[in-house]
Amino acid sequence: MSTPSQEDYLEAIWVLTDQKGYARVTDLAERLAISPASASKMVRRLHEAGLLTYERYRGFAFTPEGKRQGRLLYARHQILERFLTHLAIGTAEDVHRVVEGIEHHFDVLRLNQIEHLVHYIDAHPEWWNQFLKDGGPEE
Amino acid sequence: MSTPSQEDYLEAIWVLTDQKGYARVTDLAERLAISPASASKMVRRLHEAGLLTYERYRGFAFTPEGKRQGRLLYARHQILERFLTHLAIGTAEDVHRVVEGIEHHFDVLRLNQIEHLVHYIDAHPEWWNQFLKDGGPEE
Ligand SMILES: [Mn+2]
Ligand SMILES: [Mn+2]
Repeated sequence: MSTPSQEDYLEAIWVLTDQKGYARVTDLAERLAISPASASKMVRRLHEAGLLTYERYRGFAFTPEGKRQGRLLYARHQILERFLTHLAIGTAEDVHRVVEGIEHHFDVLRLNQIEHLVHYIDAHPEWWNQFLKDGGPEE
Repeated sequence: MSTPSQEDYLEAIWVLTDQKGYARVTDLAERLAISPASASKMVRRLHEAGLLTYERYRGFAFTPEGKRQGRLLYARHQILERFLTHLAIGTAEDVHRVVEGIEHHFDVLRLNQIEHLVHYIDAHPEWWNQFLKDGGPEE
Protein backbone atom coordinates (compact mmCIF):
# COMPACT_ATOMS: atom_id res chain seq x y z
CA MET A 1 0.00 0.00 0.00
CA SER A 2 1.28 3.50 -0.74
CA THR A 3 0.34 6.23 1.77
CA PRO A 4 -2.68 4.85 3.61
CA SER A 5 -5.75 7.07 3.58
CA GLN A 6 -7.97 7.76 6.58
CA GLU A 7 -10.25 5.00 5.29
CA ASP A 8 -7.37 2.52 5.30
CA TYR A 9 -6.62 3.48 8.91
CA LEU A 10 -10.21 3.03 10.03
CA GLU A 11 -10.39 -0.32 8.26
CA ALA A 12 -7.15 -1.49 9.88
CA ILE A 13 -8.28 -0.29 13.30
CA TRP A 14 -11.50 -2.25 12.86
CA VAL A 15 -9.50 -5.43 12.26
CA LEU A 16 -7.14 -4.73 15.17
CA THR A 17 -9.83 -3.83 17.70
CA ASP A 18 -12.51 -6.29 16.60
CA GLN A 19 -11.38 -9.01 19.00
CA LYS A 20 -10.16 -7.27 22.13
CA GLY A 21 -11.73 -3.82 21.75
CA TYR A 22 -8.58 -1.73 21.70
CA ALA A 23 -5.19 -1.55 19.93
CA ARG A 24 -1.78 0.04 20.23
CA VAL A 25 -0.13 2.51 17.88
CA THR A 26 2.68 0.04 17.23
CA ASP A 27 0.20 -2.65 16.09
CA LEU A 28 -1.37 -0.16 13.71
CA ALA A 29 2.00 0.96 12.35
CA GLU A 30 2.99 -2.64 11.77
CA ARG A 31 -0.25 -3.57 10.04
CA LEU A 32 -0.07 -0.60 7.67
CA ALA A 33 3.71 -0.88 7.18
CA ILE A 34 4.25 2.73 8.21
CA SER A 35 6.30 4.45 10.93
CA PRO A 36 4.93 4.63 14.49
CA ALA A 37 5.18 8.43 14.16
CA SER A 38 2.79 8.46 11.18
CA ALA A 39 0.42 6.06 12.90
CA SER A 40 0.48 8.18 16.05
CA LYS A 41 -0.27 11.33 14.07
CA MET A 42 -3.31 9.76 12.44
CA VAL A 43 -4.55 8.34 15.74
CA ARG A 44 -4.43 11.85 17.15
CA ARG A 45 -6.34 13.18 14.16
CA LEU A 46 -9.01 10.47 14.44
CA HIS A 47 -9.28 11.23 18.15
CA GLU A 48 -9.87 14.90 17.37
CA ALA A 49 -12.51 13.87 14.82
CA GLY A 50 -14.36 11.97 17.54
CA LEU A 51 -13.68 8.53 16.06
CA LEU A 52 -11.22 7.20 18.64
CA THR A 53 -10.78 7.41 22.40
CA TYR A 54 -7.51 6.99 24.26
CA GLU A 55 -7.48 4.00 26.57
CA ARG A 56 -5.13 4.43 29.50
CA TYR A 57 -2.36 1.77 29.35
CA ARG A 58 -3.98 0.03 26.39
CA GLY A 59 -3.68 2.43 23.46
CA PHE A 60 -6.91 3.49 21.78
CA ALA A 61 -10.39 2.24 20.95
CA PHE A 62 -13.25 3.22 18.64
CA THR A 63 -16.02 5.55 19.68
CA PRO A 64 -19.44 4.26 18.53
CA GLU A 65 -19.23 6.49 15.43
CA GLY A 66 -15.69 5.31 14.67
CA LYS A 67 -16.84 1.73 15.07
CA ARG A 68 -19.74 2.28 12.70
CA GLN A 69 -17.42 3.71 10.03
CA GLY A 70 -14.72 1.08 10.55
CA ARG A 71 -17.25 -1.73 10.19
CA LEU A 72 -18.65 -0.32 6.94
CA LEU A 73 -15.19 0.20 5.46
CA TYR A 74 -14.08 -3.29 6.40
CA ALA A 75 -17.28 -4.74 4.95
CA ARG A 76 -16.72 -2.80 1.73
CA HIS A 77 -13.25 -4.26 1.36
CA GLN A 78 -14.52 -7.79 1.99
CA ILE A 79 -17.41 -7.49 -0.44
CA LEU A 80 -15.20 -6.20 -3.24
CA GLU A 81 -12.58 -8.83 -2.54
CA ARG A 82 -15.08 -11.68 -2.58
CA PHE A 83 -16.61 -10.27 -5.72
CA LEU A 84 -13.35 -9.96 -7.66
CA THR A 85 -12.36 -13.40 -6.41
CA HIS A 86 -15.53 -14.82 -7.99
CA LEU A 87 -14.58 -13.01 -11.18
CA ALA A 88 -11.13 -14.58 -11.06
CA ILE A 89 -9.33 -11.47 -12.28
CA GLY A 90 -6.00 -12.80 -11.00
CA THR A 91 -4.23 -14.29 -7.98
CA ALA A 92 -5.38 -13.58 -4.43
CA GLU A 93 -2.58 -11.03 -4.23
CA ASP A 94 -3.70 -9.33 -7.46
CA VAL A 95 -7.25 -9.17 -6.14
CA HIS A 96 -6.11 -7.66 -2.86
CA ARG A 97 -4.05 -5.00 -4.64
CA VAL A 98 -6.91 -4.06 -6.95
CA VAL A 99 -9.33 -3.80 -4.03
CA GLU A 100 -6.91 -1.56 -2.12
CA GLY A 101 -7.01 0.78 -5.10
CA ILE A 102 -10.68 0.74 -6.01
CA GLU A 103 -12.45 0.51 -2.66
CA HIS A 104 -12.16 4.22 -1.88
CA HIS A 105 -14.26 5.05 -4.94
CA PHE A 106 -17.28 3.06 -3.82
CA ASP A 107 -19.75 4.71 -1.50
CA VAL A 108 -20.08 2.37 1.50
CA LEU A 109 -23.83 2.88 1.40
CA ARG A 110 -24.11 2.04 -2.30
CA LEU A 111 -22.63 -1.43 -2.15
CA ASN A 112 -25.91 -3.28 -1.60
CA GLN A 113 -26.19 -4.48 -5.16
CA ILE A 114 -22.65 -5.88 -5.26
CA GLU A 115 -23.18 -7.44 -1.85
CA HIS A 116 -26.38 -9.09 -3.01
CA LEU A 117 -24.59 -10.43 -6.06
CA VAL A 118 -21.84 -11.94 -3.92
CA HIS A 119 -24.43 -13.58 -1.66
CA TYR A 120 -26.43 -14.76 -4.63
CA ILE A 121 -23.36 -16.35 -6.21
CA ASP A 122 -22.53 -18.08 -2.92
CA ALA A 123 -26.10 -19.33 -2.51
CA HIS A 124 -26.52 -20.35 -6.17
CA PRO A 125 -23.19 -21.64 -7.43
CA GLU A 126 -24.99 -23.48 -10.25
CA TRP A 127 -26.30 -20.14 -11.49
CA TRP A 128 -22.82 -18.59 -11.52
CA ASN A 129 -21.37 -21.73 -13.08
CA GLN A 130 -23.64 -21.23 -16.04
CA PHE A 131 -21.72 -18.04 -16.81
CA LEU A 132 -18.34 -19.59 -16.02
CA LYS A 133 -19.09 -22.50 -18.34
CA ASP A 134 -20.80 -20.66 -21.20
CA GLY A 135 -19.36 -17.16 -20.86
CA GLY A 136 -15.91 -17.84 -22.28
CA PRO A 137 -14.13 -15.86 -24.99
CA GLU A 138 -15.55 -17.92 -27.87
CA GLU A 139 -19.12 -16.97 -27.04
CA MET B 1 -12.22 14.63 -13.04
CA SER B 2 -9.35 15.90 -10.89
CA THR B 3 -5.90 16.00 -12.55
CA PRO B 4 -6.16 13.63 -15.49
CA SER B 5 -3.56 10.88 -15.62
CA GLN B 6 -1.70 9.78 -18.73
CA GLU B 7 -4.28 7.01 -19.08
CA ASP B 8 -7.10 9.57 -19.09
CA TYR B 9 -5.29 11.49 -21.84
CA LEU B 10 -4.82 8.43 -23.99
CA GLU B 11 -8.45 7.45 -23.51
CA ALA B 12 -9.64 10.95 -24.45
CA ILE B 13 -7.34 11.06 -27.48
CA TRP B 14 -8.78 7.74 -28.60
CA VAL B 15 -12.29 9.21 -28.52
CA LEU B 16 -11.20 12.43 -30.27
CA THR B 17 -9.19 10.76 -33.02
CA ASP B 18 -11.38 7.70 -33.58
CA GLN B 19 -13.45 9.36 -36.31
CA LYS B 20 -11.13 11.63 -38.23
CA GLY B 21 -7.71 10.25 -37.23
CA TYR B 22 -6.28 13.38 -35.64
CA ALA B 23 -7.17 16.01 -33.02
CA ARG B 24 -6.17 19.46 -31.82
CA VAL B 25 -4.76 20.42 -28.44
CA THR B 26 -7.76 22.71 -27.86
CA ASP B 27 -10.20 19.80 -28.39
CA LEU B 28 -8.26 17.74 -25.88
CA ALA B 29 -8.15 20.58 -23.32
CA GLU B 30 -11.89 21.07 -23.69
CA ARG B 31 -12.71 17.39 -23.34
CA LEU B 32 -10.61 17.02 -20.18
CA ALA B 33 -11.64 20.40 -18.78
CA ILE B 34 -8.02 21.51 -18.39
CA SER B 35 -5.96 24.43 -19.73
CA PRO B 36 -4.57 24.27 -23.29
CA ALA B 37 -1.12 24.69 -21.70
CA SER B 38 -1.53 21.48 -19.66
CA ALA B 39 -2.91 19.61 -22.65
CA SER B 40 -0.03 20.82 -24.80
CA LYS B 41 2.51 19.71 -22.22
CA MET B 42 1.07 16.20 -22.08
CA VAL B 43 0.88 15.98 -25.87
CA ARG B 44 4.58 16.79 -25.97
CA ARG B 45 5.29 14.12 -23.38
CA LEU B 46 3.26 11.49 -25.26
CA HIS B 47 5.07 12.46 -28.45
CA GLU B 48 8.41 11.93 -26.72
CA ALA B 49 7.16 8.55 -25.50
CA GLY B 50 6.44 7.53 -29.09
CA LEU B 51 2.65 7.45 -28.67
CA LEU B 52 1.70 10.52 -30.73
CA THR B 53 2.90 12.14 -33.94
CA TYR B 54 2.50 15.79 -34.82
CA GLU B 55 0.34 16.36 -37.86
CA ARG B 56 1.17 19.55 -39.71
CA TYR B 57 -1.82 21.96 -39.65
CA ARG B 58 -4.05 19.34 -38.01
CA GLY B 59 -2.66 18.86 -34.50
CA PHE B 60 -1.61 15.34 -33.55
CA ALA B 61 -2.45 11.69 -34.18
CA PHE B 62 -1.70 8.32 -32.57
CA THR B 63 1.26 6.20 -33.55
CA PRO B 64 0.29 2.52 -33.89
CA GLU B 65 1.48 1.88 -30.32
CA GLY B 66 -0.46 4.90 -29.01
CA LYS B 67 -3.53 3.68 -30.85
CA ARG B 68 -3.20 0.23 -29.34
CA GLN B 69 -2.97 1.67 -25.81
CA GLY B 70 -5.76 4.20 -26.37
CA ARG B 71 -8.10 1.51 -27.66
CA LEU B 72 -7.44 -0.76 -24.67
CA LEU B 73 -7.94 2.08 -22.18
CA TYR B 74 -11.16 3.18 -23.82
CA ALA B 75 -12.41 -0.41 -23.89
CA ARG B 76 -11.58 -0.78 -20.19
CA HIS B 77 -13.64 2.28 -19.33
CA GLN B 78 -16.57 1.03 -21.41
CA ILE B 79 -16.50 -2.47 -19.94
CA LEU B 80 -16.44 -1.20 -16.36
CA GLU B 81 -19.16 1.33 -17.09
CA ARG B 82 -21.44 -1.26 -18.67
CA PHE B 83 -20.75 -3.61 -15.82
CA LEU B 84 -21.55 -1.13 -13.05
CA THR B 85 -24.60 -0.05 -15.00
CA HIS B 86 -25.84 -3.65 -14.94
CA LEU B 87 -25.20 -3.65 -11.21
CA ALA B 88 -27.25 -0.46 -10.84
CA ILE B 89 -24.94 1.06 -8.23
CA GLY B 90 -26.42 4.53 -8.85
CA THR B 91 -27.27 7.05 -11.57
CA ALA B 92 -25.40 7.16 -14.88
CA GLU B 93 -23.42 10.06 -13.45
CA ASP B 94 -22.53 8.09 -10.30
CA VAL B 95 -21.40 5.18 -12.43
CA HIS B 96 -19.24 7.41 -14.60
CA ARG B 97 -17.60 8.99 -11.56
CA VAL B 98 -16.86 5.61 -9.96
CA VAL B 99 -15.38 4.28 -13.21
CA GLU B 100 -13.14 7.34 -13.55
CA GLY B 101 -11.78 6.46 -10.11
CA ILE B 102 -11.43 2.69 -10.34
CA GLU B 103 -10.40 2.09 -13.95
CA HIS B 104 -6.72 2.87 -13.38
CA HIS B 105 -6.46 -0.02 -10.94
CA PHE B 106 -7.51 -2.67 -13.45
CA ASP B 107 -4.88 -4.13 -15.72
CA VAL B 108 -6.19 -3.66 -19.28
CA LEU B 109 -5.09 -7.18 -20.09
CA ARG B 110 -6.89 -8.69 -17.12
CA LEU B 111 -10.38 -7.49 -17.94
CA ASN B 112 -11.40 -10.56 -19.96
CA GLN B 113 -13.49 -12.05 -17.23
CA ILE B 114 -15.44 -8.84 -16.56
CA GLU B 115 -15.86 -8.35 -20.30
CA HIS B 116 -17.21 -11.87 -20.68
CA LEU B 117 -19.63 -11.26 -17.85
CA VAL B 118 -20.92 -8.07 -19.49
CA HIS B 119 -21.39 -9.90 -22.80
CA TYR B 120 -23.00 -12.84 -21.06
CA ILE B 121 -25.46 -10.56 -19.28
CA ASP B 122 -26.29 -8.84 -22.57
CA ALA B 123 -26.75 -12.15 -24.36
CA HIS B 124 -28.68 -13.82 -21.50
CA PRO B 125 -30.82 -11.16 -19.83
CA GLU B 126 -33.04 -13.91 -18.40
CA TRP B 127 -30.02 -15.31 -16.57
CA TRP B 128 -29.17 -11.93 -15.05
CA ASN B 129 -32.83 -11.27 -14.26
CA GLN B 130 -32.81 -14.34 -12.06
CA PHE B 131 -30.35 -12.56 -9.79
CA LEU B 132 -32.13 -9.21 -10.04
CA LYS B 133 -35.43 -10.85 -9.10
CA ASP B 134 -34.23 -13.25 -6.39
CA GLY B 135 -31.07 -11.54 -5.18
CA GLY B 136 -32.67 -8.82 -3.08
CA PRO B 137 -31.81 -7.94 0.51
CA GLU B 138 -34.31 -10.38 2.06
CA GLU B 139 -32.62 -13.40 0.55
MN1 LIG C 1 -8.78 -2.16 2.19
MN1 LIG D 1 -12.18 6.92 -18.15
